[in-house]
Amino acid sequence: MHNTEKGMKALRLSEVAALLDGEFVGAEDPLITGVAGLEDAGPGDLAFVGRQKPRNGLADSGAAAVIVGRDQEVDRPAIRVDDPFAAFASLLERLMPDPDRLFPPGIHPTAVIDPSAEVEEATAVGPYSVIGPGTVIGAGSRLGAHVILGCDISVGRDCLLHSGVTVREGCILGDRVIIHSGVIIGSDGFGYLTSRQGIRKIPQIGVVEIQDDVEIGSGSCVDRATTGRTVLGAGSKIDNLVQIGHNVSIGKSCSLSAQTGIAGSSTLGNGVFTGGQVGIGDHIRIGDGVKAGGQTGITHDIPAGQTIFGYPALELTETFRMFAALRKLPELLRRVTRLEKGSCVSDDNAGKDQD
Amino acid sequence: MHNTEKGMKALRLSEVAALLDGEFVGAEDPLITGVAGLEDAGPGDLAFVGRQKPRNGLADSGAAAVIVGRDQEVDRPAIRVDDPFAAFASLLERLMPDPDRLFPPGIHPTAVIDPSAEVEEATAVGPYSVIGPGTVIGAGSRLGAHVILGCDISVGRDCLLHSGVTVREGCILGDRVIIHSGVIIGSDGFGYLTSRQGIRKIPQIGVVEIQDDVEIGSGSCVDRATTGRTVLGAGSKIDNLVQIGHNVSIGKSCSLSAQTGIAGSSTLGNGVFTGGQVGIGDHIRIGDGVKAGGQTGITHDIPAGQTIFGYPALELTETFRMFAALRKLPELLRRVTRLEKGSCVSDDNAGKDQD
Amino acid sequence: MHNTEKGMKALRLSEVAALLDGEFVGAEDPLITGVAGLEDAGPGDLAFVGRQKPRNGLADSGAAAVIVGRDQEVDRPAIRVDDPFAAFASLLERLMPDPDRLFPPGIHPTAVIDPSAEVEEATAVGPYSVIGPGTVIGAGSRLGAHVILGCDISVGRDCLLHSGVTVREGCILGDRVIIHSGVIIGSDGFGYLTSRQGIRKIPQIGVVEIQDDVEIGSGSCVDRATTGRTVLGAGSKIDNLVQIGHNVSIGKSCSLSAQTGIAGSSTLGNGVFTGGQVGIGDHIRIGDGVKAGGQTGITHDIPAGQTIFGYPALELTETFRMFAALRKLPELLRRVTRLEKGSCVSDDNAGKDQD
Repeated sequence: MHNTEKGMKALRLSEVAALLDGEFVGAEDPLITGVAGLEDAGPGDLAFVGRQKPRNGLADSGAAAVIVGRDQEVDRPAIRVDDPFAAFASLLERLMPDPDRLFPPGIHPTAVIDPSAEVEEATAVGPYSVIGPGTVIGAGSRLGAHVILGCDISVGRDCLLHSGVTVREGCILGDRVIIHSGVIIGSDGFGYLTSRQGIRKIPQIGVVEIQDDVEIGSGSCVDRATTGRTVLGAGSKIDNLVQIGHNVSIGKSCSLSAQTGIAGSSTLGNGVFTGGQVGIGDHIRIGDGVKAGGQTGITHDIPAGQTIFGYPALELTETFRMFAALRKLPELLRRVTRLEKGSCVSDDNAGKDQD
Repeated sequence: MHNTEKGMKALRLSEVAALLDGEFVGAEDPLITGVAGLEDAGPGDLAFVGRQKPRNGLADSGAAAVIVGRDQEVDRPAIRVDDPFAAFASLLERLMPDPDRLFPPGIHPTAVIDPSAEVEEATAVGPYSVIGPGTVIGAGSRLGAHVILGCDISVGRDCLLHSGVTVREGCILGDRVIIHSGVIIGSDGFGYLTSRQGIRKIPQIGVVEIQDDVEIGSGSCVDRATTGRTVLGAGSKIDNLVQIGHNVSIGKSCSLSAQTGIAGSSTLGNGVFTGGQVGIGDHIRIGDGVKAGGQTGITHDIPAGQTIFGYPALELTETFRMFAALRKLPELLRRVTRLEKGSCVSDDNAGKDQD
Repeated sequence: MHNTEKGMKALRLSEVAALLDGEFVGAEDPLITGVAGLEDAGPGDLAFVGRQKPRNGLADSGAAAVIVGRDQEVDRPAIRVDDPFAAFASLLERLMPDPDRLFPPGIHPTAVIDPSAEVEEATAVGPYSVIGPGTVIGAGSRLGAHVILGCDISVGRDCLLHSGVTVREGCILGDRVIIHSGVIIGSDGFGYLTSRQGIRKIPQIGVVEIQDDVEIGSGSCVDRATTGRTVLGAGSKIDNLVQIGHNVSIGKSCSLSAQTGIAGSSTLGNGVFTGGQVGIGDHIRIGDGVKAGGQTGITHDIPAGQTIFGYPALELTETFRMFAALRKLPELLRRVTRLEKGSCVSDDNAGKDQD
């Protein structure tokens, strides 16, 4: 069973059900040759039906079979499981390409590894990767092509650094960290001293600490601290093109969507979620579990548990009320002018000089 | 005739007119040594006058000569053509540097090409490029330095992949695709399953399909689909630092300006235009021909043909009305307070104690 | 004295005071083993107290000693100086890692340098860097690993190009320019000619000029001009993931925070400051000294000296007034409805049926 785009080694649906510890239901036992989203699925595809009702209903899907919850109605062969999404994820895991094809084991002869670096049973270092002096890589970690690790870096065990990742001196990566292509870890923070003599660079001598099980999407940047550490807490997931400034501290199990930006020295608690393009100013404190909708602009501290949205960032329902009211604003202006003209006195001139 | 920054082999204006199939007009026939924008042009420069009236008028320009439409007034030697901008573009094409200087033909000896890859009469593979197993590159395509193609990728004919492009396994590029430096194609989509046990990664086993004549600007990221394909339709142009999430489908001839972000599973029709920093939420449908102004935040479906702007995204004229009304809002609050104080009484002091 | 994360060779506080030309005060003379921010500092750390009052007061800090102004009260050993921040910066400069460890001197044997390129006493060219024909690099400049310089580029003296920087043909860098990893200089501007025949690419034959003492943060993109030059003025500082479009002109000593985007042909004066995620439309003129708060969207010219904020961009105090008024808008709608119902009659029920 291996990936051929969306495909797989053909299996009967009943066989897939057995793999997933699910219940096979259906009059027929179709041959499954691929997996797909419900809307994209065609003949031979197994799709899953999530908690959200499908936009076009189940009937419109071309899927040969579906993975559903225990009580969902179906109109075709199906696998019943407790959690369809989790079962789908398990199935996708089985369809992942062979990691030895993506990251051929061993150290490629073109890799430039400083004699003082320690590459401890790393299963893969790709072509043209460069590993600086004093850097240590834990067992089972895989590096793609063109990965650049500066000096005195510590990479934990079973990490995955995709092609074209750059990590600068002194940074610390935990275990099972995944970093996607084009990510830059440990560039200088944006710190200057502005005076009449001009703009003077504040040296940035701190590092970045990336804890266990963090994943960072392609093109994102995490700046080194001025002093001390910029920290990404265990289990946090960072999407693409995210900017994390110097001395930022991100808690555990946070999720930051694409193009989010966090300015220097801000602190996020655990379980914080941001939508895309959210901006967080400097020296801000965001409490545990805060959720911020897409493009929210945060310029003040947010207490734990709040769901915020908008620019300025307000509590979600307040923003929705405000957005609804905004659409009535041009009309409101006219209504007030009308009131002023008619207000309570027989003053024929009232309101006449309104623009 | 070749580029020397803005310059070219010197030609008489009448010679340039002949090259462009234009009409030479003027008492003199100046020697043209460069091309430039109207405002930047100096002696020896040929500039073009577009449909927009020049900010400072034609008279302020230092251009030796201009390319203009058939009926435009001129105060200096000129070339008259039907479409000045198109003629200017044609002239710029002649001034492009020699591609053999930018992408020296042949496969550089440092390129690492898997024996199972097929590089079909590619005219150029630059130094330190890496081409994985099973990858196929069509005739006439040029790859710069440090291009990383993973395994099982298909690149069409006459593509241009600038230095430092990364494409991951299984992705599909059509013909005449241009990809600029730093672009990452096919990184994992941002998909997780969050439960009490933590955040579990959903494997992303789909691919990216980039159709013919697409161009993608530097630093942009296009994520692979969870299953199936993330699609960029033929002829679409993507600017720099744009984020395109997993399973997004973009139609034909779209134009997405810099730093636009599109979250997972959204669908854009044909001919969609976004200004800079536009954000589109997940699972959104944008109809054909929709235009969205800079920084617009789109959180719901937009029917074909609409021009939208703002945050929340509203029809353009409604946003402009709302923005105008917004500026009157603080004053409106005072006016309503005045009305409330004065309502139903003839209070001569109404409004006097406003702040 | 060298960096060990935040650390240094241990020195007595009085010795550090002498290095900084400061006044040592205190009953004890503690051994200083590191520097840190006030809030992060622990035993052995020297911290500085800036102009902003510390969030948690000085007393809460674990710092062994502090750098303070001449008149500030202290509760522990201290160094008194005229400008604590400047003294701290000087101290950090002494703690920078040895540049010969970060950029080992000499040209790495794997660097591919065209015979026609001139590398003039460059102290460092890192592994796998590629330098194209006709490119000139001034004395004292250091290039990290995987730096890609195209053809006919001019790099001045004492520049620092971190690993993974890409500069395309014809671009010009002044002296002491610092460019961080992943930056792309000189990609094609986003210029097309749209007609019924489709979208036609306008060749971009201009260059980028980066003047002395500019610093550009990781992942940022600066597009080459259509004709002429995109210019970054002397001393300007650009943060990470910033997009600068073709033919933009940025003045001297500007500071552009992360994820700012500037569309084509806009002009910034000297000393312009943008917060994070600011967007500036095309063909806009921003005067000297303009400051724009985070996420501001600028669609029209801004005169010199203004401080603006918001979307639409308004003068800062107007935006704050508007934001405050916005929160009252839903209530305002109800107040006006109440006025309309009750206007000019003594209606005891006014407002009772509000939603």
